[in-house]
Amino acid sequence: MTGARSLLDILPAGVGTDDADVLAAYSHDKATFCPAGEPRALVRARATDDVVATLRWASEHRVPVVPQGTRTGLSGGANAIDGCVLLNLEKMNRILEIDAEEQIAVVEPGVINGDLANAVAERGLYYPPDPGSKDISTIGGNVATGAGGMCCVKYGTTADFVRGLSVVLADGRVMRTGRRTAKGVAGYDLTRLFVGSEGTLGIATEITLALRPARMRPLTAVGFFSSAEDACRAVARYLSEGFKPSVLEFMDAASIRAVGELTELGFPDGTGAMLIAQSDTAAASGELEAFERAAKDSAATEVIVAEDPAEGDLLMHARRLAGVAMEKQGPSLIDDICVPRRRLAELVRGIEKIANEHDVLISCVGHAGDGNIHPNVAFDANDERQVASAQRAFDAIMALGLELGGTITGEHGVGTLKRHWLARELDEAALWSHQQIKYALDPHGILNPGRVL
Amino acid sequence: MTGARSLLDILPAGVGTDDADVLAAYSHDKATFCPAGEPRALVRARATDDVVATLRWASEHRVPVVPQGTRTGLSGGANAIDGCVLLNLEKMNRILEIDAEEQIAVVEPGVINGDLANAVAERGLYYPPDPGSKDISTIGGNVATGAGGMCCVKYGTTADFVRGLSVVLADGRVMRTGRRTAKGVAGYDLTRLFVGSEGTLGIATEITLALRPARMRPLTAVGFFSSAEDACRAVARYLSEGFKPSVLEFMDAASIRAVGELTELGFPDGTGAMLIAQSDTAAASGELEAFERAAKDSAATEVIVAEDPAEGDLLMHARRLAGVAMEKQGPSLIDDICVPRRRLAELVRGIEKIANEHDVLISCVGHAGDGNIHPNVAFDANDERQVASAQRAFDAIMALGLELGGTITGEHGVGTLKRHWLARELDEAALWSHQQIKYALDPHGILNPGRVL
Repeated sequence: MTGARSLLDILPAGVGTDDADVLAAYSHDKATFCPAGEPRALVRARATDDVVATLRWASEHRVPVVPQGTRTGLSGGANAIDGCVLLNLEKMNRILEIDAEEQIAVVEPGVINGDLANAVAERGLYYPPDPGSKDISTIGGNVATGAGGMCCVKYGTTADFVRGLSVVLADGRVMRTGRRTAKGVAGYDLTRLFVGSEGTLGIATEITLALRPARMRPLTAVGFFSSAEDACRAVARYLSEGFKPSVLEFMDAASIRAVGELTELGFPDGTGAMLIAQSDTAAASGELEAFERAAKDSAATEVIVAEDPAEGDLLMHARRLAGVAMEKQGPSLIDDICVPRRRLAELVRGIEKIANEHDVLISCVGHAGDGNIHPNVAFDANDERQVASAQRAFDAIMALGLELGGTITGEHGVGTLKRHWLARELDEAALWSHQQIKYALDPHGILNPGRVL
Repeated sequence: MTGARSLLDILPAGVGTDDADVLAAYSHDKATFCPAGEPRALVRARATDDVVATLRWASEHRVPVVPQGTRTGLSGGANAIDGCVLLNLEKMNRILEIDAEEQIAVVEPGVINGDLANAVAERGLYYPPDPGSKDISTIGGNVATGAGGMCCVKYGTTADFVRGLSVVLADGRVMRTGRRTAKGVAGYDLTRLFVGSEGTLGIATEITLALRPARMRPLTAVGFFSSAEDACRAVARYLSEGFKPSVLEFMDAASIRAVGELTELGFPDGTGAMLIAQSDTAAASGELEAFERAAKDSAATEVIVAEDPAEGDLLMHARRLAGVAMEKQGPSLIDDICVPRRRLAELVRGIEKIANEHDVLISCVGHAGDGNIHPNVAFDANDERQVASAQRAFDAIMALGLELGGTITGEHGVGTLKRHWLARELDEAALWSHQQIKYALDPHGILNPGRVL
C-alpha cells in the first residue's frame, strides 16, 4: 500500500513499520466475528511526540488511525481498518509518578493495569479497577473502554478514577483535561467525555489517576444454589439491606463445571449457581454474615465463609479462571449486558430460554452486584448453522438486556461488535449529539472511524 | 421589549410573564459584582413541555435563554442577559421516584437538595452531596455547577451521583443520557459532559441519581490550632495516613470569630484556626483517634472528641453558619480555589500576604480534606478604593491557586465571574475543544451565552 513511507520517514528509527507479517500480528483484538482490515503501517509510539507526528501526518493525508494497546478488547475496537495506521501505545509504559500524599498516579497509556496496582500497593495505596484482563490489559485501553472489573460494585469503574488526561487531538495538538486536585469544575468535564470514547475523539498519552488508601485484605464467602434464579434473588436481597461488599460475583452451572474441569477445585454436586462475596471492611461490619443470611433466605444449598484470606484468594482465582476455562472449550461470543439488579433473575431465565430457542450453549458469569452479566455463547466455528445461531442468540441477549431496562454494554465497550446496537439503546437526539461531538473534535473522521458510531 | 408576547402566548396560562417587577426579582443570583441584564420574559416551567416550547421559540427567534433554579449560585451563571428569557425550573420540584432496591432516585430539577436528602433518609438511604446551600439550592442547580459540599472528601461531588439525565437541547429536542443501571459504557459519557456545563449545552428536566445505603450517624472531633498553617499541616498528615473521614473542614480565626459573634459557642482564646473531622464508620476504625494524633503532632492547642452525635451536630452547625456569619458582616467576594492538599499551608500563607498587600480583610473556610478553600474578601461597597482592592485580591487568589497546581473553582462554577480566568487555567486546545462542543450542540448560541466560555 502506498503512502506508508512518508509516515515512517518522519518517525524515529524503529518506531514505524510496514512489514506485512508484523502488521498482521497487530491487526486484531480478542473480539470474535469482528472483521479486521489491512493496515498501511504500524507505529509503536515511544513518546507523545510519536503520537503527535502520526496524527499530524494522518490528518494531512486523511488516513484513519486505530489506537491500540495490548489488544485484549472484546469488541473489535482495536482491529485494523483497511489502509489505516495502527497506533500502538504498549511501549509507552512508564509509571511517571506515584504521589502517596495526594493519592494520585500519573502513567503512560501502555502501563499494564496489574503492574500499576502492584506498584501503588508497595506505597500503601490501592488502585481498585480490576478488569478480568488486569494482568494483560493496559491502563490506556481501560480508559478507552471505561473498563470495569470485580471491585466496581464497591469502588466504581475506571472512569471514576481518572482525574485528568493529556490527549493528542486528531490534528496533532496536545490538550490537557482535568486536574490533579481532588475537586474541580472549571469548564466542561472533557476528561469524562474522553474516557470510554474508544479512541474516536483523541488519544490519551498521559493519564492522572486517583488512588485510595490501602484496604484490608478481603475475606470471602461463597454461596451455592440449586438454580441461577435463587442466586440472583440472593443478590437483590443482600444489597437491598444496605451492604457494600467489595466483590459480589456470579457463576452459573456451566461456568462452574468449566472451571472445575480446569482445576482441582471441587464444587458440591448439582450446583446450579454460585455467588462469591468479599468484604474488605472490619469483620465487625457484619458484611459476610449478612451475605450468609441473604443466601440462606434465598434457598442456598450451602454457604461457606472462608476462614482466612488465602482460602478466599483461591475462590476468587476460580472466578477469574472462568474466562480461560470457557476459551478452552472452543470459540464463543462474550456478551456484556447490564440490567437493574432486581431484573437479574429475569435476565438469567431469559438467557436460558434464548439458549433453548437457538439451540446453543450459553454459560454466564458476571458482576452480579452491578447487574452486569457476561453470557458466553459457544459454537462450533466449522458449523455454519451453529455460527449463525450463536450470532442470533448474541443479539437476542442484547435485546433482552434493553427490554429489562439495561444497557448493551456494562464495561467492554461498543467497538464494531455492537455499533448497530448503540442506535437501539440511544434515542435520536442522543445519537445526533454523539455525531455532532465526533465531527466537532475530529472533522476529518480519522480517529478510529466506524467504531462506537 | 418586543417579542415576549409571542412566547407567552404559546405557553400555558401563568407559566410565562413579562411583568417588570417580577423580572427584576428573578434577574440575579447570589454572586457579587456580576452584572445582570434586562430579561425579556420569565418562564416558570411546570413541565418538560414548557421547556421544550421555550427552547423551540428561542431557537427560532435566536433569543438567549438563561436557565435558573433558586438562584443561590455564586458566580453569576443565572443572572439575566439583556433580552433573554429567564427559564426558571424551581416549580419542577417533584421527586418522581425513590427506588430503594436499586438505590436510585429520579427527580425534577427544582427539587431542593435537602428535601431529597430527607426523603431518601426516610427510606433508609443516603444522598451525600451537601453543598453549603443544601437547604435552599436545587438539584438542577447542583447538577449545572457540579456542586460539592462537606461530605465530598469521602463520597465525591454531585457529578459522582448523576446516573442519567433527560435534557432538552437548544432546538427543543429531548434527549436521554446515561442509564439506571450501576454500570454502562454504551457511547460517550454525555451525562458527565452536561453535569457542570452551567446550562450552556442543554437543560436537564429529569435527573437520575445514585444513592447509597444509610450510613452511621457521624461522630465529630475538633482540633484548635494557633495558626492556620499548623491546621493545614495536620490535614496533610492525617490524610496521608490513609484515613477517609466523612468531613474534614477548616475555619480560620476570622471566620471562627464571626461565628462566635453570631452564636453562644465559645472557642478557646487565641485560636488561629480550627479543623472539624467526622467519622461515619465503626468507632473501631480509629478515624477520630488518628485525627487527634495528627492534630497533636501538628501542634494543636486542643483537640476535643465529641462524646455523642448531638454534640457533633452542634459543631457542624457552627461550620455551616460561617457563610451566614460572613454575610452579616457586609459585602464580600467568595472565592473557591482548590489546590493539592500538601499545598494548603502555602495557600493560606499566600492569602494572608494578599490580604496585607491589598489592605483587605480575607477570611477562609473550606473543605480542607479536598484542598478546596473559600476565601471571603470583605469590603465596604461605598468605598470605591476598597471595592477595587477587593477585586484585585480576588484575582490574586485565583492566580495563587493556579500557581500552586490548583484550579480556579472547586465547586462553585465559572459563570460570568471567572470566565476570563478559565482561559488561564485551560490550554489553547482545551479551550478550542470547549468552543467546538458548545457550537456543535448549540449552533445558534442561545443557551446561557457568555457563561463559562
